[in-house]
Amino acid sequence: MDQHTLQKFDRGLKTLTDRLLFMAGLVESHLNDALAALQIQDGPTAERLAKSDRPVNLLEMECDELCVRLIAQYQPVASDLRFIVAAMKLVTDLERMGDLAVNIAERAVELSRSPKLDPPIDLRPMGALVQAMLKEALDAFIGRDAAAAEAVLVRDDVVDTAFRDLFATLIARMKKDPGNVERAVGLLFVAKHLERIADHATNIAEQVVYLTRGQDVRHKSSVESSD
Amino acid sequence: MDQHTLQKFDRGLKTLTDRLLFMAGLVESHLNDALAALQIQDGPTAERLAKSDRPVNLLEMECDELCVRLIAQYQPVASDLRFIVAAMKLVTDLERMGDLAVNIAERAVELSRSPKLDPPIDLRPMGALVQAMLKEALDAFIGRDAAAAEAVLVRDDVVDTAFRDLFATLIARMKKDPGNVERAVGLLFVAKHLERIADHATNIAEQVVYLTRGQDVRHKSSVESSD
Repeated sequence: MDQHTLQKFDRGLKTLTDRLLFMAGLVESHLNDALAALQIQDGPTAERLAKSDRPVNLLEMECDELCVRLIAQYQPVASDLRFIVAAMKLVTDLERMGDLAVNIAERAVELSRSPKLDPPIDLRPMGALVQAMLKEALDAFIGRDAAAAEAVLVRDDVVDTAFRDLFATLIARMKKDPGNVERAVGLLFVAKHLERIADHATNIAEQVVYLTRGQDVRHKSSVESSD
Repeated sequence: MDQHTLQKFDRGLKTLTDRLLFMAGLVESHLNDALAALQIQDGPTAERLAKSDRPVNLLEMECDELCVRLIAQYQPVASDLRFIVAAMKLVTDLERMGDLAVNIAERAVELSRSPKLDPPIDLRPMGALVQAMLKEALDAFIGRDAAAAEAVLVRDDVVDTAFRDLFATLIARMKKDPGNVERAVGLLFVAKHLERIADHATNIAEQVVYLTRGQDVRHKSSVESSD
């Protein structure tokens, strides 16, 4: 690429990064708001959030289109191409996380209609874990920080354990009192959605490692395990 | 591209397509086997399937790597580039479907350990719907058939309705008898996994439309809806 083309390409990459960060910020705030609405049983806010997937969906299409255009126009190779491919994967993960935040908001709408379980089940610790994972994965992506990304990968196990504990608690509460069933199932789905968001944060962290080290760490354990 | 390079590129595309089809066939057969094991409460088969994610994971990495190499070496544009981008998205969906088939097998292991609900809940109709959707989405991809892909998009609503019906039935069974809770929750998760597989089949169908018509139909309703 000549100097002029290079400058234009760099501007394109900058635009892409800005839009990715904007999209990520939106998903983060939807998740925060959905969890807050769930906690304080704020039905109207939850209803608004349950219908708020449009901006994230439009950003997904916009970012994908930007990626394809950058590849077609500038035919980047090596680390530039790798960044764009990672961006396309990131966009897919962000869009799914946005959907899952919407799913949590939908459950929050239902759960706002009846009193909380007594004693209440607190999803905040698991929610905080997942929010921290997402934030750290995004920070690692912005800073191209492989070490930070690897720290995110480890955290996923903590979230899985939190999910299993909540699962056992909720099953016990349903067995104890059939009147708990609907609410407990609602919370079970919220917990499952949180666990899935953590999986997507893991995917993002894996992309950061790929981006910075050129090493594909997805399914690392499955490659290492012999069967 | 000169004639020789073009031939090499075409061979690369052919290899990519073959590997995608191989990966898709594997995912289809894992799903079929997991549902069959669930139905006949075949614990040993379900256990084997629950540990069978490795080949699909390896194929995901291989196909992604192939895509990046084809872009870097041949710098394709227009419909060739679009095909490779669609392939990268397809691979992500196939890998997730493979994971969901594993999740179904994991539930089938648990559910094989206790007698079926009485009367039993039959997940076969929903399973058959989802399997048909997956098959049709893959056929549409192979044949680059936009009309067939659009038929898949419509089917997703039928699956959502089947899920909602099963959800209501399972909640009622849990409320009626707390002894049903674990098994009903297990089946609820299987139904949820099937619904997610249908979502991924929808994604594939959307990629086919993008590929054949150059038109991004993802989130079409969210673009059309005014809010």
